[in-house]
Amino acid sequence: MEFLKVLSVKEVIELIKGFHPLGTEIVTLDMACGRILAETVRAQEPVPHFRRATMDGYAVRAKDTFGASESLPAILEVVGSVEMGKIPSFTVGPNQAGAIPTGGALPEGSDAVVMVEHTERIDESTIEVYRPVAPGEHVLSVGEDIPEGAEIFKAGRLLKPQDIGVLAALGIYELKAYRKPKVAVISTGDEIVPYTTKGPLPVGLIRDTNSLFIAGLCEEVGAEVGVKILVGDDKKRLRDACHELAENHDVVLLSGGSSVGIRDFTLEVLNELPQSRILFHGVAIKPGKPTILATSGNTYFWGLPGQPASALTVMFALVCPFLQVMQGTFPNFPYSKKTAEAVLSVRVPSVHGREDYVPVQLINSENGWMAHPVFGKSGMVSLITKADGFIIIGEHDEGLDEGSPVTVYLVR
Amino acid sequence: MEFLKVLSVKEVIELIKGFHPLGTEIVTLDMACGRILAETVRAQEPVPHFRRATMDGYAVRAKDTFGASESLPAILEVVGSVEMGKIPSFTVGPNQAGAIPTGGALPEGSDAVVMVEHTERIDESTIEVYRPVAPGEHVLSVGEDIPEGAEIFKAGRLLKPQDIGVLAALGIYELKAYRKPKVAVISTGDEIVPYTTKGPLPVGLIRDTNSLFIAGLCEEVGAEVGVKILVGDDKKRLRDACHELAENHDVVLLSGGSSVGIRDFTLEVLNELPQSRILFHGVAIKPGKPTILATSGNTYFWGLPGQPASALTVMFALVCPFLQVMQGTFPNFPYSKKTAEAVLSVRVPSVHGREDYVPVQLINSENGWMAHPVFGKSGMVSLITKADGFIIIGEHDEGLDEGSPVTVYLVR
Repeated sequence: MEFLKVLSVKEVIELIKGFHPLGTEIVTLDMACGRILAETVRAQEPVPHFRRATMDGYAVRAKDTFGASESLPAILEVVGSVEMGKIPSFTVGPNQAGAIPTGGALPEGSDAVVMVEHTERIDESTIEVYRPVAPGEHVLSVGEDIPEGAEIFKAGRLLKPQDIGVLAALGIYELKAYRKPKVAVISTGDEIVPYTTKGPLPVGLIRDTNSLFIAGLCEEVGAEVGVKILVGDDKKRLRDACHELAENHDVVLLSGGSSVGIRDFTLEVLNELPQSRILFHGVAIKPGKPTILATSGNTYFWGLPGQPASALTVMFALVCPFLQVMQGTFPNFPYSKKTAEAVLSVRVPSVHGREDYVPVQLINSENGWMAHPVFGKSGMVSLITKADGFIIIGEHDEGLDEGSPVTVYLVR
Repeated sequence: MEFLKVLSVKEVIELIKGFHPLGTEIVTLDMACGRILAETVRAQEPVPHFRRATMDGYAVRAKDTFGASESLPAILEVVGSVEMGKIPSFTVGPNQAGAIPTGGALPEGSDAVVMVEHTERIDESTIEVYRPVAPGEHVLSVGEDIPEGAEIFKAGRLLKPQDIGVLAALGIYELKAYRKPKVAVISTGDEIVPYTTKGPLPVGLIRDTNSLFIAGLCEEVGAEVGVKILVGDDKKRLRDACHELAENHDVVLLSGGSSVGIRDFTLEVLNELPQSRILFHGVAIKPGKPTILATSGNTYFWGLPGQPASALTVMFALVCPFLQVMQGTFPNFPYSKKTAEAVLSVRVPSVHGREDYVPVQLINSENGWMAHPVFGKSGMVSLITKADGFIIIGEHDEGLDEGSPVTVYLVR
């Protein structure tokens, strides 16, 4: 058996970018952090909706302060005091003033605030003002912060804590956001036992390594992991599990069994699912070639390699950005929160026609960051934590020379 | 009233760096992503704990293949087939071989694996081998991936999904991690109504903006937010709330009331708490000067400014890194997931003796990234979402000239 439909990484990325987001749902502001807006949001009221003082001081008519100075202060009659959160109970007439705290509502008649530092109280009802203020000074007028009807955020925005603050100010408590993908993770293989199994293990058995880091990465990019299960090398059980999980999951991630060996059932199983479509079988990526993407109904099925380092590479390169596309964003490929520029410490050979994702450690040298490849045998689990990040050798490159400038996609 | 103990940003950072983490707890692997290890972890068993094939092929004695070639293949007798997850039921003697899948346990007597691609099955019990293998080739020996007793992760490590994978492989299901700070958030002010309040609001009232973004940032850095409450400008109610929340929270964050105006009760209230210590009142930072840090018993109390842009700045500059210190890490100040290098688009004035945190937009110009300051009046809530990040003008600088290179701490 051979790989059926091998695509280049570029082709897979184009395919994924063409997928539609899953759908939308209403979320309340308390739960909206990290979600992706599915609608453009406009201000339904102005902010502020009343004229607000931005300093502690006195609300005045600006023209009454024109020409005021230390030597020739303006003398104003204090006719009231604004209470926080209340409508002022008085108006300010010519040569009058009202005490006002930061955030207080300007009384009628006033059009500016004199800072308390620029005044002196002469007696119970008189102040001296030592500096002139312009109309509107130390005042936020209605809608000056956010005009009514203004576009606040466009659809597709990833909501950060400070965005939630602005929405709170506007009284927008419910939002239309893209749905989070619901993901199921299956580890396959007769040799796999649950990661909760205490040692020493019998010869031949190993603990499930992949489902935890696959699930962790899914959650890091905003997906919800429903279940993590183990299935042995049994075609019928695997088919039943896929069938059942498709019912209430948007995405099923299988690790192991995606290659072309005698124990590799994933492709066959996916082929037999209802309305099955195999989008590709094999990606020109190293490590990670034995990767499958299929759909059955509305559910996406990824077949990932069983080797931890290969599965991790495919997660960063393709699956994490895929899960972001499902949530309505336009992600970068590969997924990485941070990059660093470095030079390569040694020559790294590669082969024309595939992209190589090479794990590297970053070493601080006198010439800046040095990227040093992490080597190890195929199948080593320790490989996945030794690297600070990875570099990509393009499909048209036959390796990179020592000293080449490289972008390191950080994974820590 | 004046600020009592104004510290420079540097002094506050030194103070915070000297704080002890909160304590430790046992977490299971399923919940360990994003947690900080509080102990150094060692391998209690080797990985693999049996000799594993890294390729599909035949387990052989390497020396039986020496000199094998296309023209002169080694001829070996196939004496068995290794089943995944099982102890091999046969041994490999001289000129013998056993079929083995990737990940299978090597049978006794064998010391290498010939890839299936380099063999041909002649009949039921005979193969030809076309290439020699060295002892150990395509085999992971016991502990070759992770030796027993090896140090896996040091205390203080932030656990990423791939780290969890390695711990799973090792059967380390329970870990000692630093406790997450439990945080309470209080918004103060008679003018504040819950963010769930529908509009139009009466004149004088505004919705609570700060508690949601403060809580969101706390959660982003790994803290747990217990409650978010509103308290009016009432000294007794504020004192009672602080007293009560101190019972089961590690950190209480108050916004508003931390300055020196007539409505600013926070300092007075914190002063009256049992075993109260005011660590500082006032930070030489703009915006954000009216910031307080106090302790009462084992609880930390931060008084944050009420202006959203000021509160946000203090969160990034001080509170988020503080919450990371509480969790046993050595964070960067200010908190920011990413930075960008840019040049300043205009001159930005500042004042000697304080650090200015200036919100900026990043603009892509032909000379690379340009940082353009976002201006707005004090108290504007829209300011907090207009910036891509902020730059810092140091306490010894009196502004930065147009064209100055700046580091932008990204907030999106």
